[in-house]
Amino acid sequence: MLAGFVVFFTLAQLVPLALTFAEPAHEGISSLGGFCGSIAIGGVVSGLLAYAGRKARGEFYRRETICVAGIAWFLASLLGAIPFLWSGLLPNACDAIFESVSGLTTCGGTVLGSAGNPAPELTPESLLMWRALLQWLGGIGIVLVFVALMPSMGMAGKNLLTAESVGVSMDGYQPRILEQSRGIIYVYVSLTTACTLLLVPIGGMSWFDAICHAFTCLATGGYSTRTSVAKFESLGAEVILTVFMYLGGCSFTVMAAAARDGWKGFRGMVRTGEFRIYTLFTVLAVGGVWIDLMRGGMGAGTALRQSSFNVVSMLSCCGYATSDFHAWPPLSLIVIFTCTMVGGCSGSAAGGMKQVRLLVCLKLLAYTIRRFVRPKSVERLRLDDEVLQASTMSSVLAMVLLWLLTILVGGMVIALDQRLSFIGALSASASMLGNCGPAMVLVHPDVLVAGLPALGEGVATLGPNIGPFGGFGELSGWLKLVLGFEMILGRLELLTLLALFSPGFWRR
Amino acid sequence: MLAGFVVFFTLAQLVPLALTFAEPAHEGISSLGGFCGSIAIGGVVSGLLAYAGRKARGEFYRRETICVAGIAWFLASLLGAIPFLWSGLLPNACDAIFESVSGLTTCGGTVLGSAGNPAPELTPESLLMWRALLQWLGGIGIVLVFVALMPSMGMAGKNLLTAESVGVSMDGYQPRILEQSRGIIYVYVSLTTACTLLLVPIGGMSWFDAICHAFTCLATGGYSTRTSVAKFESLGAEVILTVFMYLGGCSFTVMAAAARDGWKGFRGMVRTGEFRIYTLFTVLAVGGVWIDLMRGGMGAGTALRQSSFNVVSMLSCCGYATSDFHAWPPLSLIVIFTCTMVGGCSGSAAGGMKQVRLLVCLKLLAYTIRRFVRPKSVERLRLDDEVLQASTMSSVLAMVLLWLLTILVGGMVIALDQRLSFIGALSASASMLGNCGPAMVLVHPDVLVAGLPALGEGVATLGPNIGPFGGFGELSGWLKLVLGFEMILGRLELLTLLALFSPGFWRR
Repeated sequence: MLAGFVVFFTLAQLVPLALTFAEPAHEGISSLGGFCGSIAIGGVVSGLLAYAGRKARGEFYRRETICVAGIAWFLASLLGAIPFLWSGLLPNACDAIFESVSGLTTCGGTVLGSAGNPAPELTPESLLMWRALLQWLGGIGIVLVFVALMPSMGMAGKNLLTAESVGVSMDGYQPRILEQSRGIIYVYVSLTTACTLLLVPIGGMSWFDAICHAFTCLATGGYSTRTSVAKFESLGAEVILTVFMYLGGCSFTVMAAAARDGWKGFRGMVRTGEFRIYTLFTVLAVGGVWIDLMRGGMGAGTALRQSSFNVVSMLSCCGYATSDFHAWPPLSLIVIFTCTMVGGCSGSAAGGMKQVRLLVCLKLLAYTIRRFVRPKSVERLRLDDEVLQASTMSSVLAMVLLWLLTILVGGMVIALDQRLSFIGALSASASMLGNCGPAMVLVHPDVLVAGLPALGEGVATLGPNIGPFGGFGELSGWLKLVLGFEMILGRLELLTLLALFSPGFWRR
Repeated sequence: MLAGFVVFFTLAQLVPLALTFAEPAHEGISSLGGFCGSIAIGGVVSGLLAYAGRKARGEFYRRETICVAGIAWFLASLLGAIPFLWSGLLPNACDAIFESVSGLTTCGGTVLGSAGNPAPELTPESLLMWRALLQWLGGIGIVLVFVALMPSMGMAGKNLLTAESVGVSMDGYQPRILEQSRGIIYVYVSLTTACTLLLVPIGGMSWFDAICHAFTCLATGGYSTRTSVAKFESLGAEVILTVFMYLGGCSFTVMAAAARDGWKGFRGMVRTGEFRIYTLFTVLAVGGVWIDLMRGGMGAGTALRQSSFNVVSMLSCCGYATSDFHAWPPLSLIVIFTCTMVGGCSGSAAGGMKQVRLLVCLKLLAYTIRRFVRPKSVERLRLDDEVLQASTMSSVLAMVLLWLLTILVGGMVIALDQRLSFIGALSASASMLGNCGPAMVLVHPDVLVAGLPALGEGVATLGPNIGPFGGFGELSGWLKLVLGFEMILGRLELLTLLALFSPGFWRR
């Protein structure tokens, strides 16, 4: 099965390969060679895998499922890095792997533009397209695509979907999953197309930029073809991207169902608890930051433009930035940090611990307080007309705690680089785990005295700038691998991978 | 019952009152007048309460219990503030209330030494003694003292103990509680005496300093008679205080049982899960910070001296400081922040969310991962040979989540003061809720370039210095009240107070 996966992944590289013939030559960077080499490697690997697995049974058990999901992401990350490395764009292997993992997990943290690596503006278009494509494929979930194809190959794919754990419950049998996956892909492709078609006339982008941004926007990835989206100097582009980032953070499962049922489906979607709390969260976060920026001396219009774009970008874990927001006042920083932790809806390409888990936690808290006052009351917790079982509650809570603990431990590891600060280490950890991309670092105090930065203006930082306008290039190699590992952890929602590394897993 | 409580509290003021006659006169501060006025007010309030409650029944229900615990703390805070206010030491009412609440909750954040208020060195000894006494009384839990006395007054006191929620379970009937309370007080007084007796010869302190430090050390309060304990320039004093801070963070319930049973009891204490994880946590945190400081260029001996004292101080939520530790490298800051969140053992005077809850969470996480791999395994979670019920688990988890959420929301409110930073707002919130005392703020970048600060050396900060060597005086009045509210929230472990403010509580 892994062999089929690699073949698919290798075929996807034909798209940027085609582009290499059209683009102007870049000094020292041979993207053609990179892709050819990579495709060759992909072919060999898939051949070997097919040979090794030729006698495998067509059945899946829980343990194998967890294995495959984990290995698939590691494998894809390595294969995805080859074009960056062999084209000469990123001569450092750690950089290339970081960029590939960051793309596939739709994290969006980049090493371009820092530590001697070329900025996106100076990168060949084929490689930019490959970055965007990595995110788009990662976004729909390479595994989810594969699940849709798998039944036709006579294999049971249901467990794989569980390993990706989309939503709280995922009932259903094979044909339904196939149908559902098709619906999701349909919605995903339609929205990407719509985004592209809107970005060209209204956003004033070229077709190439529009496609790349649509790819990375719906996947909530955040790789841009410029250092910042603000460089396009187009309010239209920002508004469109904000809307589609928001949509990218909605549940594709729910949107697919809504698309099937038309207006009635749309009303059903609005009625789901997760959609409501996601929308409420967005409004509160944007509003809070908006007011905070105005208190900090920014005009109402500019403040709204900056807060809505950047907050939605961080909440949906996309990671575009139009403002170097770590220079914002502390309340805004805490709100953005919270957005990074919570993320979008389950069943979306967004990262974070997911809105539905926040909703369950809030429900439990309200319930606990009520019970504390009246211990004898009999009451059941409900979510969208379904009673929450005690076991569901407990696994949701465990997941949330594990998420926070991982952010903390990850922050401690990142803080081993003493040039980073408290906020730098913690926000980098949360950002990687939540697949957001940019972290927040300490800005130079002179910047704070000068007032809030203008749209698209980068500010001076203390230590390596891993913030919205910076890159992770200056960090040391092992730290990039740690960050990459944390991205995959976040993408597979922790449990899959932790189980893979727990000693009990391999025992009989 | 509240009347009796106020009488007790008022009588306690006689101790510092006696001191006023012995101390030299301080210009503009009339501590004698302050205490006399305060005692008069205390008498009037208790008289009124006794009159209002003369027909009350001698029975307690759950709802009344929650009420009394909440009101008692607010009342004591107001009464405790009067000496500071009327003596002229703190002319601002918000400052006086902050200082009193911070004392009673054993938080230890102070307004002395900032914003024009005199530093501890310039404060009359009677008022310093009153600060220490507030913490000592707060530490043993004014409510716990009262519970021990209550059965003799023919009232059922068991529910009050539940409201203070010492430990996970607190079974038993009245006589046992009485006995237990006496045991706890016995241990508390003995340890305080031992600490005093050791501090004078070995620590080189005066009797007055030794008593004040013993009071605030065992209560894990952290009010010192100097700006920093480092001002005594005595390694002996630091070692003794470290040991007694550590003991102050242990469970007094368990220690009382151990004291009763001698050597066998001590072995039983070492075997409890909470004591073990507390010790392990201490060793890991001190070790981590030690290595981090050495990597930052500090000598091994100095690094160990600074890390052990300050980390134990923050973990036991005491709040003394010998180093201006917010200038330390990021890993140390994250470790200290974690210490502030977790705190000491349940049943101690320490704050934080308590080690036992951390233990339960870790057990649940390990269990969830095991279950994820083998869904069909039948296994029960145990803590010290007791099976953890699902309802206990769920309330512990809810408590932890509520704790983290409160830190986050509190941080957002504190961040409304835009002079504070991300780390300042969040650590102040965690520190107030965990009753630690000092927060961490941004230090000036020149300080970071100059290297780690020496023992007892204060560093320049950006914005108001609410760090270990600073004070909360510069914050605005409403923010001090918010911080004070958060301290009481943390002291009563959230649920009591939140229930008091929830609308359902007052309904029939």
